[in-house]
Amino acid sequence: MDFRTISSVIGALVGALGLAMLLPALADLVAGHEDWLVFVSASLITTIFGAGLWAASAGGKSDLNLRQAFLMTVLIWVVLTMFGALPLYMSGLGLSVTDAMFEAMSGITTTGATVITTLDESPPGILLWRGLLQWFGGLGVVVMAIAVLPMLRIGGMQMFKAEAFETPDKIFPAAAQIASAMIIVYCVLTFACAVAYWVAGMGAFDAIVHALSTVATGGFSTRDASLGAFDQPAIHYIAVVFMILGALPFVLYVGAVRGSFKPLFRDSQVRVYLFIIAAAALTMALIQIVGDVAQGETAFRQGLFTVVSIISGSGFGIADFSNWGPLAVAIFFVLMFIGGCTGSTSCGIKIFRFQVLARDLYQHIRQIVFPSMVYVKRYNGRPLPDSVSTSVQSFVFVFFSSFLILAVLLSFSGLEPIDALGAAATSISNVGPGLSPELGPAGSFANLNDASKWLMTIGMLVGRLEVMMILVLLTPRFWRA
Amino acid sequence: MDFRTISSVIGALVGALGLAMLLPALADLVAGHEDWLVFVSASLITTIFGAGLWAASAGGKSDLNLRQAFLMTVLIWVVLTMFGALPLYMSGLGLSVTDAMFEAMSGITTTGATVITTLDESPPGILLWRGLLQWFGGLGVVVMAIAVLPMLRIGGMQMFKAEAFETPDKIFPAAAQIASAMIIVYCVLTFACAVAYWVAGMGAFDAIVHALSTVATGGFSTRDASLGAFDQPAIHYIAVVFMILGALPFVLYVGAVRGSFKPLFRDSQVRVYLFIIAAAALTMALIQIVGDVAQGETAFRQGLFTVVSIISGSGFGIADFSNWGPLAVAIFFVLMFIGGCTGSTSCGIKIFRFQVLARDLYQHIRQIVFPSMVYVKRYNGRPLPDSVSTSVQSFVFVFFSSFLILAVLLSFSGLEPIDALGAAATSISNVGPGLSPELGPAGSFANLNDASKWLMTIGMLVGRLEVMMILVLLTPRFWRA
Repeated sequence: MDFRTISSVIGALVGALGLAMLLPALADLVAGHEDWLVFVSASLITTIFGAGLWAASAGGKSDLNLRQAFLMTVLIWVVLTMFGALPLYMSGLGLSVTDAMFEAMSGITTTGATVITTLDESPPGILLWRGLLQWFGGLGVVVMAIAVLPMLRIGGMQMFKAEAFETPDKIFPAAAQIASAMIIVYCVLTFACAVAYWVAGMGAFDAIVHALSTVATGGFSTRDASLGAFDQPAIHYIAVVFMILGALPFVLYVGAVRGSFKPLFRDSQVRVYLFIIAAAALTMALIQIVGDVAQGETAFRQGLFTVVSIISGSGFGIADFSNWGPLAVAIFFVLMFIGGCTGSTSCGIKIFRFQVLARDLYQHIRQIVFPSMVYVKRYNGRPLPDSVSTSVQSFVFVFFSSFLILAVLLSFSGLEPIDALGAAATSISNVGPGLSPELGPAGSFANLNDASKWLMTIGMLVGRLEVMMILVLLTPRFWRA
Repeated sequence: MDFRTISSVIGALVGALGLAMLLPALADLVAGHEDWLVFVSASLITTIFGAGLWAASAGGKSDLNLRQAFLMTVLIWVVLTMFGALPLYMSGLGLSVTDAMFEAMSGITTTGATVITTLDESPPGILLWRGLLQWFGGLGVVVMAIAVLPMLRIGGMQMFKAEAFETPDKIFPAAAQIASAMIIVYCVLTFACAVAYWVAGMGAFDAIVHALSTVATGGFSTRDASLGAFDQPAIHYIAVVFMILGALPFVLYVGAVRGSFKPLFRDSQVRVYLFIIAAAALTMALIQIVGDVAQGETAFRQGLFTVVSIISGSGFGIADFSNWGPLAVAIFFVLMFIGGCTGSTSCGIKIFRFQVLARDLYQHIRQIVFPSMVYVKRYNGRPLPDSVSTSVQSFVFVFFSSFLILAVLLSFSGLEPIDALGAAATSISNVGPGLSPELGPAGSFANLNDASKWLMTIGMLVGRLEVMMILVLLTPRFWRA
């Protein structure tokens, strides 16, 4: 294998990450906090390493083969996480290597689980850096989902290759153009979100950091009480709107910007997603009212906010759902797996895969009852090829298997069964909070032992890379020939 | 639809069940317990109803179409359970309708979960009837798996149609002959098991009842402490041997009886099954030794016994695994889903489906890495058609979905999350005990509310009928045309 192309891309991205560390350095400098030196040093190390790697690997062929594309994608996430952890480790918070890696991985995979319990007293640099990690992670996911995964035919994503590149109107013929359009959409959404938060009463700095992690459906906050620290209902509704926007297919926004909103609202994935949110939010409002946890607008807002926060994989909290009763916990457990739409910043199994499974199942049952009938599966008006079905079924099987293995390993590392199930689900689906009072919205991952933290860190990476990417790299055949 | 064929078959089976009630009547009469009258009355009602139904539906066409076969199979299980519950409801135990239906369904589906907490003082008639329900249920499952499910192409079982009917040696050309051979094998195994229990020191009556439920991988016992009430290690090892024999493919015994043991030991399903048992049993022995729960032979025996009891779906207990720590509980949770081999009395997803999933996944990953490669899947030396893969994948998806829905509904009925997960898994996989101290081997289902009991009763039926059968009946298209 020729590693030069891979290492030049990684070098360039590491260099960019190093430059981005100057932003939190600036924040700490303005606030007069000594951590600005930490960020400048980390920036120097990271930028020099990145630039050096980039320079040293000049002369590589510019086109990647399939196996190189796999290797590069996985390496990008791992290497960027390691450098992203550097300022966290060097900072005045006194995080261990384990904690710094957990926090950076949770950031860059847009999970949002945190081991820091003193956010309220943390310097602005650290808070901004956590937000930036999520924002970069979210952008990486969108670009990966639109430009890389369909090419690698991961988990049925080949279906969206056709959609993005072969639409009759051919909005953008090339991948690079699509990527830059996505970046513009992403920046506009983030800016709009920050302004909305600020208008609703949040301080400017809090508004920016929360906007970074809201649009990324990440979930990192500047407060230990998450968005619950802000008691303006408007802020919670703004978060709901931008979490949903972050979890819709970004490709459709391009059309919407050009004035045609129809594709967005006609997309069956979007419709199913919004329907699930509405149904679950109403259920949660009822559960709170019947269980006398909250009433009226509070019950409605907490229900809607928490449902959107969990299903989009954000993980912000304004209420502790772990004491809404077992039915609520069970539903949130299921919502964690569902996730958002594909081609968004969200995670989990994703809506379109459930749609494909449902269509396959419907066809299968019809064929059991009427063996001689011929029935063509369709998705969003187009025929659904069997190869996509196979990919999706393999994906879901591998996803659940990984979840079960992670849950067993976590219980082996010392977690109680319900904690292990919650921690495994929240890691592999990149959500954030667990299900129990200890690890849920009101709990913290800070007290877990190192083994549990590393298992969760690996789980977040595996989930973010749609499981299959890792599995492909683990096969001996990949490295042969 | 012409219902006469269906109702004549059901009538004949109900009549036979009614006659079988004379056996517990005899047992109570010998023991001098007044419940003999209950069994004679129940027998009269059941036999007369069955005979009447059979006589009234004479003149039906003898061949069933596909939809009639589905309807008949489901109706047989439901109607026989209702009549099987009759003596339980009428007996001196004072069971409610809910409890009697739960117990009968748990019996006939070979689940083994019980709501009776006074087994030690119960009259012999009830104990024998519970054993007989499991024995008939186990026989029904074997015949269904070999003669009915492959024809209905449920969950990839069509693969075994070829195996049973089209082997080059054509041991038995007709389904009726296969069924009668299975009945002979089943009776011989039961007789051998009863004799072995008796020789090892069990009383003759206990030996017979336990033999009925051991070979059926059912799990009903004559004692509240299950097989833990017998302190002879030999009895526990005998149970292990016959639970394993009950969970192997019965078709292979026919060859073994004729002196050719090779197909039995060459069968890849059997090999994987025995390997999983060995690995899990060793792990459990280690967990007990490290956790200082038990030592030496006791740890080995309790580990092996409990692993075999859970994976085969029996549910006998000699030790309370719910206090072996979270890792043990997590592993038993997974073992519940695995189940035994197909064409046996056991339940769950079954080994061959995991093998098919593994082969599909392997092929899928190879094709991701090497898109142009052609690779033929094989199972047990034969090509594995894509239609089987599709069936298996749909089955596993529907199985887990049913499990999740049942767990959510159970938590809605008032169970704690871990109880709901355990109760849902044990119902749908027809195992027996749950996972927590309350519902595990040392707990009881007697204290659940009626809603939870009915949900579990339905879950047992759905699991025993391989989920797909119920789903097919629930589609509107099934009833149209």
